[in-house]
Amino acid sequence: MADLLVFGSIAYDCIETPTDSEDYILGGSAAYAAIAASYFAPVKIAGIVGADFKPSDLERLRARGIDTSGMEFSPKPTFFWRGRYHDNFNSRDTLDLQLNAFEGYVPNLPQSCASAEYVLLGNISPEHQKTVLDSVKNPKFVVLDTMNFWIETARAALDAMLPRADLFILNDSEAKMLSGERNIILAGEKLAKISGGAVIIKTGEYGAMLFHKEGFFVVPAYPVRELHDPTGAGDSFAGALVGYLAGEDKTDFSAIKRGMVYAAATASITVESFSCYKLERSGRDEIERRAEYIKQISRL
Amino acid sequence: MADLLVFGSIAYDCIETPTDSEDYILGGSAAYAAIAASYFAPVKIAGIVGADFKPSDLERLRARGIDTSGMEFSPKPTFFWRGRYHDNFNSRDTLDLQLNAFEGYVPNLPQSCASAEYVLLGNISPEHQKTVLDSVKNPKFVVLDTMNFWIETARAALDAMLPRADLFILNDSEAKMLSGERNIILAGEKLAKISGGAVIIKTGEYGAMLFHKEGFFVVPAYPVRELHDPTGAGDSFAGALVGYLAGEDKTDFSAIKRGMVYAAATASITVESFSCYKLERSGRDEIERRAEYIKQISRL
Repeated sequence: MADLLVFGSIAYDCIETPTDSEDYILGGSAAYAAIAASYFAPVKIAGIVGADFKPSDLERLRARGIDTSGMEFSPKPTFFWRGRYHDNFNSRDTLDLQLNAFEGYVPNLPQSCASAEYVLLGNISPEHQKTVLDSVKNPKFVVLDTMNFWIETARAALDAMLPRADLFILNDSEAKMLSGERNIILAGEKLAKISGGAVIIKTGEYGAMLFHKEGFFVVPAYPVRELHDPTGAGDSFAGALVGYLAGEDKTDFSAIKRGMVYAAATASITVESFSCYKLERSGRDEIERRAEYIKQISRL
Repeated sequence: MADLLVFGSIAYDCIETPTDSEDYILGGSAAYAAIAASYFAPVKIAGIVGADFKPSDLERLRARGIDTSGMEFSPKPTFFWRGRYHDNFNSRDTLDLQLNAFEGYVPNLPQSCASAEYVLLGNISPEHQKTVLDSVKNPKFVVLDTMNFWIETARAALDAMLPRADLFILNDSEAKMLSGERNIILAGEKLAKISGGAVIIKTGEYGAMLFHKEGFFVVPAYPVRELHDPTGAGDSFAGALVGYLAGEDKTDFSAIKRGMVYAAATASITVESFSCYKLERSGRDEIERRAEYIKQISRL
């Protein structure tokens, strides 16, 4: 079992869905990913929060066994996002976004984080991702996540990060945007050549596709009947996947495929509540049950 | 091995895609489905064509061993469709649609068709589908296909057909429209209760989902790199699936799952050319190769 460093945003979200809303809940790519990964491997989280960050939220992370010594504290407020999902849950508007503590932040990793073997660079600016990866002494396996915002506003910095990722994760519309290809297969194959290794394209309610030098693989999504809040689905997917790899300390094609099943299972729990409430409640047993079901529904 | 009756439109299509166009090519749900099914079972096709129907197109069907004795001939022109695909191939406009020979047509099945054990009611008006099914003496397994146009314009007639289908096939947006559910899983489960048995929801480049009383199953799409013309993908899927079931003379959960793999393989060949040109050229060997590949990419 190897250890995993998860870096990314740690945020407070105000979220409105077609059926419900909740304000100032723990979110951000690193928070979702670290909690998801904590079911599989020892996790260290890095990132910055503000003076408003609640002790109870720090406690939530620690309750999952997450090492929070890489978290920094700013006098500014915590990263803030306000979003609204449309009727079909498939698109959303960002109503407000405040970098706050992340503005001008230069990550300063403690020794415990800089020695991590597995690294997840969760969705945040590619500049922040670079600073963190530069600080990790001898990374064995690096997973990179991003989103459309960085493709549009920080393309050069993102392009410079791609070859440093052993596994690059993004969703279907982002893959088409970044590759300039309309066809998802051509998009994945092109990005796999640019990245340092493999690419996973997430396809939402349909699952995810892996483009790897040893082959192609498709995992279906776990059938979610009660979609509550899609926020953090991709972060949970990435966190569970790299958590699984770190837990097994394996990074071959077969391990990534098995990890994708766990990733899809974990993400499906995340979207059934706001924040990570349900994931924290249901735990590894429910992940195992859903992973088994995903294997079953793909089997002839 | 049992025999299969395929009923639906037999048409001439003028198709424009972002990359190419072709005029007056053989199309229609029954033509695509019958050619696809012909790789698996003895197929009889029923439907009506006009005086303009080319002997060479009749010969194409017969060259695939399809029994055309159920085809009727009208003095009016053949069913005509003109369509244009948009940039992403995911949506299309119908620029012209002429029922022509199908207007006022009352199918009159010959004995050879009325005795078929397996029946595919391809995409055409539910009234036509009813007349044909009423004429089949002792159907063992009935597959029903439809499209958004009939959901919007012939809802009552379609609703009356649903309980008579052992397997109902439609795509994701049609499933949501017909069920009134935004969630694809809830849509499939609801339609499976209304239909006479199982429901398959096709999800385009992602594959297809089966909702069956014995379980849920997901088949990924074969990764298509050269999408040429999506027309007939769904008809080929349905044709290959019911052709496989008729060829094996099995209709259980396991057989439907295996048939879906062949269906996805066959549909992926159809979309790589206009009409059924490539499917007719590449044949069963290529279907087998793609079916094996689909199994491989779903396997851990």
